[in-house]
Amino acid sequence: MKIHKERIDIESKTQIEFLDVTDKVQDVIDRSGIREGQVLVYVPHTTMGVAVNHNESMLLQDFMRVLYKIVPVDDQYSHDLFELRREAGSSDGRSNGHSHCKAILLGNSETLPVEKGKVFLTDRQSIFAVEFDGSRKRDIIVQVIGI
Amino acid sequence: MKIHKERIDIESKTQIEFLDVTDKVQDVIDRSGIREGQVLVYVPHTTMGVAVNHNESMLLQDFMRVLYKIVPVDDQYSHDLFELRREAGSSDGRSNGHSHCKAILLGNSETLPVEKGKVFLTDRQSIFAVEFDGSRKRDIIVQVIGI
Amino acid sequence: MKIHKERIDIESKTQIEFLDVTDKVQDVIDRSGIREGQVLVYVPHTTMGVAVNHNESMLLQDFMRVLYKIVPVDDQYSHDLFELRREAGSSDGRSNGHSHCKAILLGNSETLPVEKGKVFLTDRQSIFAVEFDGSRKRDIIVQVIGI
Repeated sequence: MKIHKERIDIESKTQIEFLDVTDKVQDVIDRSGIREGQVLVYVPHTTMGVAVNHNESMLLQDFMRVLYKIVPVDDQYSHDLFELRREAGSSDGRSNGHSHCKAILLGNSETLPVEKGKVFLTDRQSIFAVEFDGSRKRDIIVQVIGI
Repeated sequence: MKIHKERIDIESKTQIEFLDVTDKVQDVIDRSGIREGQVLVYVPHTTMGVAVNHNESMLLQDFMRVLYKIVPVDDQYSHDLFELRREAGSSDGRSNGHSHCKAILLGNSETLPVEKGKVFLTDRQSIFAVEFDGSRKRDIIVQVIGI
Repeated sequence: MKIHKERIDIESKTQIEFLDVTDKVQDVIDRSGIREGQVLVYVPHTTMGVAVNHNESMLLQDFMRVLYKIVPVDDQYSHDLFELRREAGSSDGRSNGHSHCKAILLGNSETLPVEKGKVFLTDRQSIFAVEFDGSRKRDIIVQVIGI
């Protein structure tokens, strides 16, 4: 049984963005040498989520529209007042209450099986690191456990 | 440390359906011989989710009603236009934008502990593979890791 | 490869509450002696969820407000009729249909990497057991796998 973990760099160009990290996840599995087991995709951030679904550009628009409907950007978020107050003494205060709320609905991680050295995905599945407070550079964690 | 993985067949009878797979998951654990560890329940599909909750028929109706309220079937989904265009050359084009949107809210997998050879569930918990684009046959993946 | 599992006691004081269990999770990792691997945080309950986000009191209010907006407590839940009927012969019948519905949106578990003996969290991340049907005492499961 082996464990192999890597940090992966990603970069979003817009505020909310579904970043397809499937190939990068597979690269980590390749480097791990693990053939049977699991891969954990984890975002160590409070305004990002992980999702596994179809990388189809119009569907990604639907996901964003649904998430914005549930958590509108123009609602009042108490957290934004907290960040405003911090801003005097902190360079990363952002009005991102809505980003946190979207993030907890998706969750911080997904675990997928690894079979014969490949992440177990069917044709229409992709793994996404979902940015809710871009654009910016971030890192995510990919950890493989298995034999 | 052992790893044991199986594909399980399921079949839904309606468009949206909570399929209780608890017994099938336990069967896989039994066959694995693993006594202490974890079981991963994973749906390799883009219009299914996994949930763990109470198998009580009126509660399942509540879940469906809440999910339909968040993601109404009669909204416009851009993905449905994509599938319409595909349909000419593809037999599985479906107007299922809403199904994908419901699926990402539940997520593709759940991991549960295994203790003394049993999946760790209290009396009122069941494991569900949740179909959002039935009726149809599907397979899901159950993977056990442990000793 | 080792596996170490513990039951942790928690107690909520209000109906919906984000209970920060980060320190308790770290204590389990410490006692496990595991340095590299994963930790699974799992709630064996049908009206609780797990979330990882920023422990900032105004943000927690935002989370609750969003969850109550999606799943209003004053909607009709069929499950409440089921519990009412049970109540004659059962001491734990509760009008908690909305609690179950909130719980499935968060999910029952989160898996996080463990690095150099520490759960992999950045400064603003905390692990929450989220109670949707308090106040009461509960237990949650923390399981560490690794080397």
